Amino acid sequence: MLESSDYLKDDCLKINCTVGVVVSATNCSQLNSIQVPESDIGAHFGMLLDNMEGSDVIFNVAGEKFHAHKLVLSARSPFFRSKFFDDGVEEDEQEIVISDLEPVVFKAMLHFIYRDTLTEDVDMATSSSSPVCSVSETLTTKLLAAADRYGMDRLRLMCESHLCKDISVNSVSSILALADGHHATELKAVCLKFAAENLAAVMRSDGFTYLKENCPSLQSELLKTVAGCEEVAAVKVESHGVYGPNFQMVVTPMAEESDKEPSIWTSS
Amino acid sequence: MLESSDYLKDDCLKINCTVGVVVSATNCSQLNSIQVPESDIGAHFGMLLDNMEGSDVIFNVAGEKFHAHKLVLSARSPFFRSKFFDDGVEEDEQEIVISDLEPVVFKAMLHFIYRDTLTEDVDMATSSSSPVCSVSETLTTKLLAAADRYGMDRLRLMCESHLCKDISVNSVSSILALADGHHATELKAVCLKFAAENLAAVMRSDGFTYLKENCPSLQSELLKTVAGCEEVAAVKVESHGVYGPNFQMVVTPMAEESDKEPSIWTSS
Repeated sequence: MLESSDYLKDDCLKINCTVGVVVSATNCSQLNSIQVPESDIGAHFGMLLDNMEGSDVIFNVAGEKFHAHKLVLSARSPFFRSKFFDDGVEEDEQEIVISDLEPVVFKAMLHFIYRDTLTEDVDMATSSSSPVCSVSETLTTKLLAAADRYGMDRLRLMCESHLCKDISVNSVSSILALADGHHATELKAVCLKFAAENLAAVMRSDGFTYLKENCPSLQSELLKTVAGCEEVAAVKVESHGVYGPNFQMVVTPMAEESDKEPSIWTSS
Repeated sequence: MLESSDYLKDDCLKINCTVGVVVSATNCSQLNSIQVPESDIGAHFGMLLDNMEGSDVIFNVAGEKFHAHKLVLSARSPFFRSKFFDDGVEEDEQEIVISDLEPVVFKAMLHFIYRDTLTEDVDMATSSSSPVCSVSETLTTKLLAAADRYGMDRLRLMCESHLCKDISVNSVSSILALADGHHATELKAVCLKFAAENLAAVMRSDGFTYLKENCPSLQSELLKTVAGCEEVAAVKVESHGVYGPNFQMVVTPMAEESDKEPSIWTSS
């Protein structure tokens, strides 16, 4: 039987092999090319934050002082731009009291504003091993809230991306609630999808009881997701125009000839 | 003969195949991950340059005016930091006359300072099709000179990387001369290596005649490269501490109560 095969000729078995080579990276001549290093613009502005050179504003966060630059804050956050440029705030060095953020959160926010990266504290923070109730207590969550209030979209997405990794049957309800509260539409969509796919287990979790009582509207959104009548991921909530951080501005008498009335940034 | 083979048992040929699967990219569940967009810090500061909000300095380059921000310039260039911070320059809006750069070069430099990218003009500019003598006339070359004088290492490397692509037998001598003149050590190393490898042809080029007459020291460096007695690529010239752009500062009477004497930034 074997002898009659087409592949056997003159007592010789020919095996035809095709060998494919996968090139993982094109290794062109390195001789005639010069590598340009990564962007260092974040490092440059980070140095300004570290050495406080040219600082023209001081933030007082629960007694802790942070020196910063109005120009950098304005370039990076629409909230600060509106406050420093549009409201015609006076030029003297000012002390601004921040009453709605903890110092560690404000510090992480400043780090992002200047360096365009997350602090190591945030990068290392994973709440996956911690109990459900503490999701809202993590630095990442607090930074998400700050990013939302100060209008920093990329920072918000960075935090959403981090929190996304913590989604579990036990945590999804509380992450969904905070995503909803902080305009984190991408995170909310992922939560809704995850909850819909693991509905029975999620409904038995403690977090869901909290969700039912405090965010009833999210239940109907979840129902819609389960029913598949809404492409959740495609829903984009328009960026909200009104920011409301709790801000108080105190003009300190640093400039000698300052005789203007102090302006107060009221909380909304 | 075939019948006696170890691989043939009971009229049956067994072929053992090992199939390897090459995964080109780990395609994890995209459901549970949120993509964070690229850095936008350059775009943010670019907007400041475009709308001139909060500008506190004006540059006059051959009659063309450019509004800028001392803080951004200082963060990005050691030359400007030294001028604006260390020299204790007064706070009023100033007009600074730049006499050693063309407006188009200064504009490209500002673009890099704020956006951390090259302008399209530079990105598109390739002198490979143009004659030898014009290498020093390209925007990239002029920007390289500016980057060197104002201490912007990454910009200089970007220009070096661009010019590197233009190296040919005809152009290498002039590129080598300007790399040497502007502390472009990486570009210089590539030029020396290229010239050493194509020595006979390079020595017959017009550019080499110029090199012999104007930069005799480069000839001995080339000889060393040919002799292979120096690892050129490893030679790193220490960053030079003294910058010497031709600068004149004119304090314009924008602030009403300005009665200080104008300070002049002399050329070196």
